[in-house]
Amino acid sequence: MPVFLNAADTDFEAAFETLLSAKREDSPDVDEAVAAIIADVRHRGDAALIDLTQRFDRVTLTSGTLRISGDEIDDAAARVPEDQRAALALAADRIRAYHERQRPEDAQWTDDTGASLGWRWTAVAAAGLYVPGGLASYPSSVLMNAIPAKVAGVPRLAMVVPAPDGALNPLVLAAAKLAGVDEVYRIGGAQAIAALAYGTKTIAPVDKITGPGNAFVAAAKRRVFGKVGIDMIAGPSEILVIADAANDPDWIALDLLSQAEHDESAQSILITTDAGFGQAVGDAVDRRLQTLERRAIAGASWRDFGAIITVPDLTTAAVLSDRIAPEHLELCVADPDALSAQITHAGAMFLGQWTPEAIGDYIGGPNHVLPTARSARFSSGLSVLDFMKRTTLARMTPAALRTVGPSAETLAQAESLEAHGLSVTARLRKLNDPG
Amino acid sequence: MPVFLNAADTDFEAAFETLLSAKREDSPDVDEAVAAIIADVRHRGDAALIDLTQRFDRVTLTSGTLRISGDEIDDAAARVPEDQRAALALAADRIRAYHERQRPEDAQWTDDTGASLGWRWTAVAAAGLYVPGGLASYPSSVLMNAIPAKVAGVPRLAMVVPAPDGALNPLVLAAAKLAGVDEVYRIGGAQAIAALAYGTKTIAPVDKITGPGNAFVAAAKRRVFGKVGIDMIAGPSEILVIADAANDPDWIALDLLSQAEHDESAQSILITTDAGFGQAVGDAVDRRLQTLERRAIAGASWRDFGAIITVPDLTTAAVLSDRIAPEHLELCVADPDALSAQITHAGAMFLGQWTPEAIGDYIGGPNHVLPTARSARFSSGLSVLDFMKRTTLARMTPAALRTVGPSAETLAQAESLEAHGLSVTARLRKLNDPG
Repeated sequence: MPVFLNAADTDFEAAFETLLSAKREDSPDVDEAVAAIIADVRHRGDAALIDLTQRFDRVTLTSGTLRISGDEIDDAAARVPEDQRAALALAADRIRAYHERQRPEDAQWTDDTGASLGWRWTAVAAAGLYVPGGLASYPSSVLMNAIPAKVAGVPRLAMVVPAPDGALNPLVLAAAKLAGVDEVYRIGGAQAIAALAYGTKTIAPVDKITGPGNAFVAAAKRRVFGKVGIDMIAGPSEILVIADAANDPDWIALDLLSQAEHDESAQSILITTDAGFGQAVGDAVDRRLQTLERRAIAGASWRDFGAIITVPDLTTAAVLSDRIAPEHLELCVADPDALSAQITHAGAMFLGQWTPEAIGDYIGGPNHVLPTARSARFSSGLSVLDFMKRTTLARMTPAALRTVGPSAETLAQAESLEAHGLSVTARLRKLNDPG
Repeated sequence: MPVFLNAADTDFEAAFETLLSAKREDSPDVDEAVAAIIADVRHRGDAALIDLTQRFDRVTLTSGTLRISGDEIDDAAARVPEDQRAALALAADRIRAYHERQRPEDAQWTDDTGASLGWRWTAVAAAGLYVPGGLASYPSSVLMNAIPAKVAGVPRLAMVVPAPDGALNPLVLAAAKLAGVDEVYRIGGAQAIAALAYGTKTIAPVDKITGPGNAFVAAAKRRVFGKVGIDMIAGPSEILVIADAANDPDWIALDLLSQAEHDESAQSILITTDAGFGQAVGDAVDRRLQTLERRAIAGASWRDFGAIITVPDLTTAAVLSDRIAPEHLELCVADPDALSAQITHAGAMFLGQWTPEAIGDYIGGPNHVLPTARSARFSSGLSVLDFMKRTTLARMTPAALRTVGPSAETLAQAESLEAHGLSVTARLRKLNDPG
């Protein structure tokens, strides 16, 4: 049974705090094993990758077959049914169109001292994309990671995907082809992260690694951070739906279940202004759970972490929503724009009853890689900016240096950094006595 | 002696690789001590802060004196000499003007399906700024961290600065006042980071922590990452100067020394097209080192990590620069814009001989918190964006859902996520059979 809460109850605050602080994930401590794997790949390169892939994925590779050939990718893509191919293409087009608007602008201007100031954005030279194998090998994630990188202008995008017992998802390879991935390697786990970060004879190192993975992958990403950039370490998925009584309880139930079916640690919360509606949604969830294919997973998530909260008004809903800072937020109310304007912390908002969160997972356009575990308070979903970096630019003229230089000298002296000051002083002296 | 390299030599590649991979920092392993400190602050709050401050800073505090009062800040600011106050004000104005241009734009548009898409940027609700005590307590760093936060619109900015033996730098407090810092606490070390991340009775928790610190502070920031956002963990400072023979060797020597004087682990590199000029700069460094106040530090840095590299042409200089990916890059050549256009990876560029790097540290306008240790390959200096996050927005109309919904169903089925598909199917069914 999920928890039913009512914001009007005297014990609500304590119960809500308990809900907020529920520990939903127990990551196994694999750090030592991961450290050993990374050291092995750094030391032995391809040979380590081949040994580890044999051990973990039961696949025999050589340096020549680590990389999946263009022909193999083409063959796999050709095996994808036409309707899936068309759906993938529409998704890719929409994701690309959305992310193209995120390209940042360079700037350059001259200020009142005559100094020229600005910045310039450039893409990272090479990015690596981790794609899980097996059941969680999602073609949509390939698009969501690869397209922003390509829109950013990353010239080299290398993807790794394990092939347990040799099996690869053809739709994943089709997505890689569609998104413009440049290289694909059939490796996974911490060894794949190590190869991307440090390089081997066959795999050139990259500068940035993104993509979801299991505990080994997450630990490896933490370890190589600094040597390369990484995206966030994602926790289990979450959804918060704020819905009034004008909704179909079954739709809202399906929206809650579409997070719950991801993972037993996922969390689905409904906030509603109508306790009866909340009860109706709870009933609809129970009905759907009787037949849902992934009912074991979804049922466990709903039982352990689900919640239905009744509030007196939408303003209270907005306040609670910001305390939850949800990854996904659905606003199924009469005026979703007005409610949205009251809310500050959310990874992605889905406005109105015709925008189920699943649209955002696949085909809406915005990215589905989003901040979890309340980190929407301080971080954002994946974007084009994650594959770019900014260089600041400054150019003083003699006149500009004359204007601002003396203050730099003063501050350098105040900070006891003599050479800093002298580097300005030497130039000012020349300006004041050019002879 | 710094290393002298020539790109034309046959052993250059190996020597350059050695230079690139030089390990400049040996962080003491303080992780266990830091974990204990954080646990203590989480458990005992203010009482732990008071005990730890007594132990590490030899200062006796109470819950009432943890926070530095407005009067105390005003008194300190009033003690700052007028020239320093004016220099600080000019720096703050210029930093604010530069960062105001970084405010990102929200976006909202309607696509050809009728779907409304976009995103919205919002500031984090509370940020914490760490400022070191003692010698490295730099007022310029207060401005560089606090002003972007305030430009971003962060409503609550809390600063922590240790007061070893009771001593505080008045200029640091003046900078905090000038930059609009809302609260200042006289605590430091891992305990201050823990207080900012988890909160105590006196100190409310924040969502994002930035600012430099020693090994304890860095380890604590790593540990609280996830609970809150953090900025990069900065390594020792670096400068690369690319200079032709038309420069004054003494100016370039001072620019190299203005990094070297920061830290024995700092690194200063000159790349020049003229071996004789390189030698003249080396001689000028030696001369300046005879009298420089911080000659012990600067001399050790220059001896252990300094380098002068001769190249046949500026294109080679640009290629080597991108391999170094320097934190600070000075282009002291006839056409710095042309050379700048050939270079991709640098935290900050200083163009032309009238722009010593020290201008960027204090008064240029761009931020001086920049990526070190080759991380300019994938990351950027501190900016307004570091104190904001983006929420993506999507709103489908019935017509838009009819257009894109079937593809979402197809992809959900392909990924075996039934509830995802059903949440779309239920709505499409209603659209197709509204009766």
